[in-house]
Amino acid sequence: LRYTDKIDLMILCGSSDKDLPIQSLEFAKSFNTVDSYDIHAEIPSHFKRGNKIAKDYGTVSVISVGWDPGIFSLQRLLGEALVPQGEVHTVWGKGVSQGHSSALRKVSGVKHGVQYTVPSKKVLRELRLGRPVTEPAEQWHLRVCYLVLEDGAEAKEVERKVKEMPYYFAPYPTEVYFISEEEFFANHSASGHGGHVMARDGEGDLLEFTLALESNPHFTARILLAYARAAFRLHQAGEKGAFTVFDIPPKYLHPAGESGL
Amino acid sequence: LRYTDKIDLMILCGSSDKDLPIQSLEFAKSFNTVDSYDIHAEIPSHFKRGNKIAKDYGTVSVISVGWDPGIFSLQRLLGEALVPQGEVHTVWGKGVSQGHSSALRKVSGVKHGVQYTVPSKKVLRELRLGRPVTEPAEQWHLRVCYLVLEDGAEAKEVERKVKEMPYYFAPYPTEVYFISEEEFFANHSASGHGGHVMARDGEGDLLEFTLALESNPHFTARILLAYARAAFRLHQAGEKGAFTVFDIPPKYLHPAGESGL
Repeated sequence: LRYTDKIDLMILCGSSDKDLPIQSLEFAKSFNTVDSYDIHAEIPSHFKRGNKIAKDYGTVSVISVGWDPGIFSLQRLLGEALVPQGEVHTVWGKGVSQGHSSALRKVSGVKHGVQYTVPSKKVLRELRLGRPVTEPAEQWHLRVCYLVLEDGAEAKEVERKVKEMPYYFAPYPTEVYFISEEEFFANHSASGHGGHVMARDGEGDLLEFTLALESNPHFTARILLAYARAAFRLHQAGEKGAFTVFDIPPKYLHPAGESGL
Repeated sequence: LRYTDKIDLMILCGSSDKDLPIQSLEFAKSFNTVDSYDIHAEIPSHFKRGNKIAKDYGTVSVISVGWDPGIFSLQRLLGEALVPQGEVHTVWGKGVSQGHSSALRKVSGVKHGVQYTVPSKKVLRELRLGRPVTEPAEQWHLRVCYLVLEDGAEAKEVERKVKEMPYYFAPYPTEVYFISEEEFFANHSASGHGGHVMARDGEGDLLEFTLALESNPHFTARILLAYARAAFRLHQAGEKGAFTVFDIPPKYLHPAGESGL
């Protein structure tokens, strides 16, 4: 293969369902890799396959890097380690959900659409105060939709279809707003996201990690770059195999390779 | 030495100025250790000395574990790694400062005293909004003091002495309140603390880690226990030498040694 002596590392940003299960394994035969594989339930088997190939070929394969899985996973682990008798919760938003926005756009009569995942203020307050959370899980997040209708589409009918969509909207508190195309492009083309990881116990201690991102893809790229540093350094240190964010000494992420305590 | 085969690890919680510089080195000759050494400027030389001894004697010596240095250091490193062109700030409080409370109690006329370090709301707001912080560094924290006077002590005179105390209070906005002994023991005997580590750039991304602790020493003990797990596991894995929070793969902190991403 050409370029194997010229390229330190490949950052793989393809889709988790179609691209990465093939690409990560194939590229790990010749290059160190970092990927953004994000199907939580399948990470252990993605790790296992990547680990075998990277070990056989002497490369480093860092998998499932991003903010969730990734930085949020790290914060959850820290919460579980420091508050082992407590509870660790993740709340997402406010932010644009790509999957839900895409589902909206498939509803007939919808020209453009975006869905914001918004955490329940009541749930956040109860979590922070260390109180039992009385809201059922499907009430933790609101789904707020902004839609531009196709000419002639019936607003009431579109709203009903959205709110009844199983899995995506039906079980959740969903708000639907109809706006003009001008407003859509002026105010709803950003891709911000964020969320909170909270660890708490019954004794009043609270750890909270908050991310508020102007651009979800931009920040995900930054995380991939930090783990690219780590992957290169692990390789330099003679390591091989698959690694997740849990396996990597934090100093390897830092531009200087070290930092003051 | 007796017990070397019976004790997996020693957790050393002595004072950083007098005890740990001697104890950490001495115990590292026979045992794995975790210490809470917290004089930031001296950590590199404490590390260097501990590293040599632990390497020579085949032990693991985890140093400077706590929330700052420790978990806050880890969050600062993460901020510097993910937002390398940005700024990382630490704000402490609201919480009891042991050093300042102790300084208060040395003022003549003071029977009991406690000092709360309180972050400036304005500074927190500017940091979160990504705005330039216009407050000078000495305005970032308020020092709020609750004092019980000795019989016959002059309140005005005590307040003046407190506010003029160099280094501890003079450069900072300081509030002094006089209360009864009953109120002091009823409402001011807790040892809560906390703070925020924030990383931000000019592009709107914000990472914020918040700790709100009911009991500073209790939570510090929890952190020491998590790193005790790590120290033991590092030793089991054949490692030796000194380690800080930056050197340790996060999975070693977790009770189960692993966690779902």
